[in-house]
Amino acid sequence: MPTSDPDGSATDLLEALAAAVAGRVLTDPASTEAYRRDQCLVADAGRPLAVVRAAGVDDVVAVLRLADEHRVPVVTRGAGSGLAGAANAVDDGLVLDVSGLDALSVDPVARTATVGPGVVNLDLDTAARAHGLFYAPDPGSRAYSSIGGNLATNAGGMCCAKYGVTADHALALTVVLPGGEVVRTGRTTRKDVVGLDLTRLLVGSEGTLGVVVEATVRLLPVPARTATAVLTFRDAAAAVDAVLAIGTVTTPSAVELMDATTVRAVNAMTRMGLDETPTLLVQCDGSDAAAEIAAVAALAQRHGALEVLHSDDEEEGRALMEARRVALTALERQGTVLLDDVCVPVHRLPELLGAIETAARAHGVLVGTFGHAADGNLHPTIVFDPASPGAAEAARACFDAIVDAALALDGTVSGEHGVGVLKAPYVARQVGAAEQALMRRVRAAFDPHGIMNPGRGY
Amino acid sequence: MPTSDPDGSATDLLEALAAAVAGRVLTDPASTEAYRRDQCLVADAGRPLAVVRAAGVDDVVAVLRLADEHRVPVVTRGAGSGLAGAANAVDDGLVLDVSGLDALSVDPVARTATVGPGVVNLDLDTAARAHGLFYAPDPGSRAYSSIGGNLATNAGGMCCAKYGVTADHALALTVVLPGGEVVRTGRTTRKDVVGLDLTRLLVGSEGTLGVVVEATVRLLPVPARTATAVLTFRDAAAAVDAVLAIGTVTTPSAVELMDATTVRAVNAMTRMGLDETPTLLVQCDGSDAAAEIAAVAALAQRHGALEVLHSDDEEEGRALMEARRVALTALERQGTVLLDDVCVPVHRLPELLGAIETAARAHGVLVGTFGHAADGNLHPTIVFDPASPGAAEAARACFDAIVDAALALDGTVSGEHGVGVLKAPYVARQVGAAEQALMRRVRAAFDPHGIMNPGRGY
Repeated sequence: MPTSDPDGSATDLLEALAAAVAGRVLTDPASTEAYRRDQCLVADAGRPLAVVRAAGVDDVVAVLRLADEHRVPVVTRGAGSGLAGAANAVDDGLVLDVSGLDALSVDPVARTATVGPGVVNLDLDTAARAHGLFYAPDPGSRAYSSIGGNLATNAGGMCCAKYGVTADHALALTVVLPGGEVVRTGRTTRKDVVGLDLTRLLVGSEGTLGVVVEATVRLLPVPARTATAVLTFRDAAAAVDAVLAIGTVTTPSAVELMDATTVRAVNAMTRMGLDETPTLLVQCDGSDAAAEIAAVAALAQRHGALEVLHSDDEEEGRALMEARRVALTALERQGTVLLDDVCVPVHRLPELLGAIETAARAHGVLVGTFGHAADGNLHPTIVFDPASPGAAEAARACFDAIVDAALALDGTVSGEHGVGVLKAPYVARQVGAAEQALMRRVRAAFDPHGIMNPGRGY
Repeated sequence: MPTSDPDGSATDLLEALAAAVAGRVLTDPASTEAYRRDQCLVADAGRPLAVVRAAGVDDVVAVLRLADEHRVPVVTRGAGSGLAGAANAVDDGLVLDVSGLDALSVDPVARTATVGPGVVNLDLDTAARAHGLFYAPDPGSRAYSSIGGNLATNAGGMCCAKYGVTADHALALTVVLPGGEVVRTGRTTRKDVVGLDLTRLLVGSEGTLGVVVEATVRLLPVPARTATAVLTFRDAAAAVDAVLAIGTVTTPSAVELMDATTVRAVNAMTRMGLDETPTLLVQCDGSDAAAEIAAVAALAQRHGALEVLHSDDEEEGRALMEARRVALTALERQGTVLLDDVCVPVHRLPELLGAIETAARAHGVLVGTFGHAADGNLHPTIVFDPASPGAAEAARACFDAIVDAALALDGTVSGEHGVGVLKAPYVARQVGAAEQALMRRVRAAFDPHGIMNPGRGY
């Protein structure tokens, strides 16, 4: 029973839910506690009226029909691996857990996969690889994040330099709208200009328009070869200069940057013994990967690289990329982290890196920066000790300064993590009033009663 | 003066327009006649109340403010090279000609260009090439079609196999909404998940949401080399089999198919003396283009190619591609053409090609088919003699049968030309009632009074 329910409407809703989705409604706070938050620990989370663990599309339809009738907020949740609080519960709302919608089928002839939102990214990729295909979008969370959340945040990863973001691989969606109507968007063709591109509109909408219950995604043939280079530089500006030069001769499948602070953290955790200086990790793939990586290495040398190491051995490549893969974990060992996700035009990265250093100094906090250099998408990671007086405030002030710096460089508040709760206060700094009003009118076209993830996003 | 204007509202609008956009309003039918149609000769076109030749953003704002106040339809028009009648005039509406908004600037450091909608695609590309960059989207009309129309139809071209469609290169838009409000969408960063992706929503919306008055597009470094192959096959199914195989080893920058009828038409016009059998034209680009095209040729041979010719000479490559470039012109020499634009999943191309042949035989018409094989996007072109009794009806019936065949193969009614007037009757065969209603609610969020290109699109 809800604690405050003067008109009994919450009780009515819970009874209707219990009838429609028997056995899959949790209301006991001890059970719902685990569904209150995603991985963004610094964002507020409410106390939900109930959690519904959907077992199929019918459950999603029932929840969205009843919630709409009762005007009760719905927060959709998959693996709970989000980094902006978009899946955090709303007080007295419902949490709709779609992790149980995990059907997965691969069509190797069409080179597509059709998946439920609860399918884990890596499981999709593994299933594709059994057919010589792969699923390109590779967020750092791919071992545990699910496709529903990847779609909700238009997740990126290392692959984007060459393969683009999740939206570039989402072909068709089945979506339940508030009220319970089921619509299908998109087409499995490579081109389609019939009507509005609702698929693209839904991807990245962070649960504000409807609930994806099935997605058909594009798979690509696994590249014949992969080759990898590690390049170190005197300073981050020199590294970015090399990134820009590399982009004129080839399109690597990954161009990852780690600053000296991040490398130091990795060394402290792994004893990898890396040079503690700004480092680029570059991968090329395809039949010509070895020649491409050699060209990258040569170019880097001409652009002032201190050390250049490259290999066309797959295993060695994986080992070289490992430093980047553990970067966040290594920084998390140093304290509580506040992970940012700003993105600027690539040629403005040196200015952003400078602004990050300035902000770190001004607020007396440690910031380790790593990220997807070829996309201009960095994850400045503020490390602080929450027990130290004023440290949390200093961290937040530094975070704020970094976001403002990105905006001043024509950048965006979020490249791939989404707005959620964490960045909702910053949206108005990036999106004008007229544009936000337009977005909200579009939102209302999907969700007239405003029940989907209210207060989040835009 | 409008011919029928019982309540004088049209007269009021014309007076207000004349005051706001002095000297750029045409009402004389002799002058407006040239603005009634795009290049789709078989679609209906109305008689406009007036044509406004906008000289700047203020003119567009004035037109959309006044038209919205008076509830008068607005059809936006650029170069008038559309192939679906989307820019055809509406009776008693306004035609808004934005071809005069043709400012163009290239930012070589950011690798972007900012253009007015009236800038011709090829002019943009030429300006980019002066900086070692290029603008990838290359519709067949690129020598005369303008960016506004390219955006409105999400135009494709030969490049899409590797580089995607117009939407993949449109970063940010400035758009005037019905009522005259100006909004800016998108970001020049490579990633952005802040709010809804209004840029993607606007691209391909065929003038139904607003008027793009400025676009910032992505430019890419010009590839170091291009190499070209001509491959002939016993039948179209064998050619498609080769296309699928090629896609597993490389991503060519063009994979164009011509059927025997098209090749015959090209021979008749040019005396190129090509083998009159299904033919693929493949281009690869990048530093490894020569090796890639050699691999393509070898693979084609293993997949039953009859003749294989390849070259890594740029000039020779251009000459080899010429046959494809003149295909439509060559077919137009044989009679009046009804050009289709269907797109299916690539592996279903053999079935589509079979259905096209069946339809041609059933309706006793000549169909030459060419198009973008790697995208599954074909342009079956029905050639008929309008003076011959029943020929126009047979052509339309064949067109209808081809569209239905594409839909039965999970295809789309239009891959890159758009719906416009020509294909509006087919939309309901592809898009469900709930989905169309949703699109219209989104449309109303932009255009509450329904003045933008009414009756067109979806």
